[in-house]
Amino acid sequence: MRLQRLMQTKGIDALVLSTNVNLYYLFGRIFSGIAYIPAEGNPSYLVRRPLGYEGVPFVHYIRKVEDLAGLVDLNTLEVVALELDELPYSEVIRQQNIFGQVTLANATAIMRELRMIKTDDEIRAIRQVAERHMAVYRQIPSLYRPGMTDIELQIEIERAMRLGGSIGIFRTFGVAMEIHMGSLIAGDNAGAASPYDFALGGSGSDALPLGANGTELREGMSVMIDMGGNYGAYLTDMTRTMSIGRLPEIAYRAHDLSRQMHEEIMQTARPGMPCSELYNHSLALAEEAGLGMYFMGGVQKAQFVGHGLGLQINELPVLTPRCRDILTPGMVIAYEPKFVLPSIGAVGVENTYLITEQGVENLTPHPEEIINLLD
Amino acid sequence: MRLQRLMQTKGIDALVLSTNVNLYYLFGRIFSGIAYIPAEGNPSYLVRRPLGYEGVPFVHYIRKVEDLAGLVDLNTLEVVALELDELPYSEVIRQQNIFGQVTLANATAIMRELRMIKTDDEIRAIRQVAERHMAVYRQIPSLYRPGMTDIELQIEIERAMRLGGSIGIFRTFGVAMEIHMGSLIAGDNAGAASPYDFALGGSGSDALPLGANGTELREGMSVMIDMGGNYGAYLTDMTRTMSIGRLPEIAYRAHDLSRQMHEEIMQTARPGMPCSELYNHSLALAEEAGLGMYFMGGVQKAQFVGHGLGLQINELPVLTPRCRDILTPGMVIAYEPKFVLPSIGAVGVENTYLITEQGVENLTPHPEEIINLLD
Repeated sequence: MRLQRLMQTKGIDALVLSTNVNLYYLFGRIFSGIAYIPAEGNPSYLVRRPLGYEGVPFVHYIRKVEDLAGLVDLNTLEVVALELDELPYSEVIRQQNIFGQVTLANATAIMRELRMIKTDDEIRAIRQVAERHMAVYRQIPSLYRPGMTDIELQIEIERAMRLGGSIGIFRTFGVAMEIHMGSLIAGDNAGAASPYDFALGGSGSDALPLGANGTELREGMSVMIDMGGNYGAYLTDMTRTMSIGRLPEIAYRAHDLSRQMHEEIMQTARPGMPCSELYNHSLALAEEAGLGMYFMGGVQKAQFVGHGLGLQINELPVLTPRCRDILTPGMVIAYEPKFVLPSIGAVGVENTYLITEQGVENLTPHPEEIINLLD
Repeated sequence: MRLQRLMQTKGIDALVLSTNVNLYYLFGRIFSGIAYIPAEGNPSYLVRRPLGYEGVPFVHYIRKVEDLAGLVDLNTLEVVALELDELPYSEVIRQQNIFGQVTLANATAIMRELRMIKTDDEIRAIRQVAERHMAVYRQIPSLYRPGMTDIELQIEIERAMRLGGSIGIFRTFGVAMEIHMGSLIAGDNAGAASPYDFALGGSGSDALPLGANGTELREGMSVMIDMGGNYGAYLTDMTRTMSIGRLPEIAYRAHDLSRQMHEEIMQTARPGMPCSELYNHSLALAEEAGLGMYFMGGVQKAQFVGHGLGLQINELPVLTPRCRDILTPGMVIAYEPKFVLPSIGAVGVENTYLITEQGVENLTPHPEEIINLLD
């Protein structure tokens, strides 16, 4: 398999996975236990819970991860990759003790590199999710009622998402990342800084300082809707901008610039192009238009203009000025050039793109104009 | 502060926290950065993001965690506690490198021990959450419509929760734990095993194998509602059982036994009682009644009958047969003796209790009878 070829190029003798996302990627299901992958030969799936996989090829039921030692020959291993960026320290030490004196490699880095390039099955799953994502976005204007707060509108969208098949959670990489079903930010809340590493913030509440904060939706405000595309294990990411009445002219100018960036940058992106160029070119266009100070945030700006996604919302590559990845067929990338305008709110568009041999394909083709919710 | 006294008894010279829950516990807000707590003297809060805490006592803005070395004297430290059970391995190594040659202790264990006993402020916050939790549960019967699936009913409850102030997410301890707003399980889905370490399972979907699975709610089924009490940073936990029409007699017998356990065990619990006794006594009552085989699950049984909770849903103590903790004033415990009955579903009650000097106080006093949704 592709993972084993990658392991071989990196001199890794065995790799152990136990996080939900990596197990799902490899096994197609989440279980409590570990997957053991040697550089050659068959994997072993060591399941603690749940019952139900008895008789499935390569599945063994175990009581504790240490049972691995009795199931496979660990004697000749020199380099073993564990999920160093995901598993708690104490769990890595526990797994390391099963192997004794080996050199540790980082299975997190390997799996993130592998998962950066989607397989045909993954792309099929992502396409299905995109359809559902767009179907829910089509309903949003009908969910608005005058006098609503941002949270009240978000709640109705959440309900439509769930009825449309959203599983509720969406998975993020990094222990500090937290979000509930997406982000809806209106007016000056768009400029509020958050502790999280998402593109925009929003002050939320003390308990979850992100996104909608109870702002009453009033005329002249933009409402940026970046609700999750979590209609299954795979994700899409899509932002659309709505407004309460007519916005000041600068809002349409900045929004059109975002759309123009999608045209000029993503529609001309090609395999072989450095990911960093996507960021640099976007920033240059924003500055050229005299809108650089509003680009990607208010007082606290995001240092990226897009990101890979798949089973998690923040996969590789990350579109930063220092990104070293090169656009490659099979990458799935959310591109989200956004502007935060004082006294108005955030504007801009986000789509999910597939990098193909020929260029890019927009997986979320959905009208991009600012929708006036009072119309 | 209490934390420093605990550190002193354990010979810990300094402690570093950077997970959202521990930062919230200490600082009252979530930020990206670290808290440094010496065994004596003032803490330092090193904030990377968000802006907004300039001028707050003990706050320093940093670019990276390594900036700690320039802010406090690290030379005399011998034992430093890091969050070994929560932070990824690579992050612990990074923090350890700031300190050089020191002995590591486990800040996760210390913080979980500390947080096991709630302060008066925490208890006040939990009481407020309990009120909101009960207010939403009062609405549930009015949300049911004949012909609904379990997921459809759950979606309406989720909406009522969010309108009632739920922040959406609730925090769990352990990287493998995942759940969306709670669990609603009907009929034989109650016996489906899950990979997660919650009291009951439910098959959910491949993408999130837990809870409601699309079961159509039909006459003769029980519907167990264990939706989160996440009305702020603090949590309560409460389960009530509803039914579609009249259930077979055994369901009422098992449900009454659960209620009797709440009376006999939790209402007579006292400081000084071993937590293990709560489990053992519960199991004994279940077996005495001839219902042991249905107790705490179907094919796959939970090995606990309750758990502490606060900022996370699964705090200490865990009410298992091998728990070594002793009931202590200030503990907040969810007690959830449940029965999974073939062809019917799950029955039983869960309440959140505060351990006081005198005994226990039920923080979720809400009618406990099985509510027939067809009435």
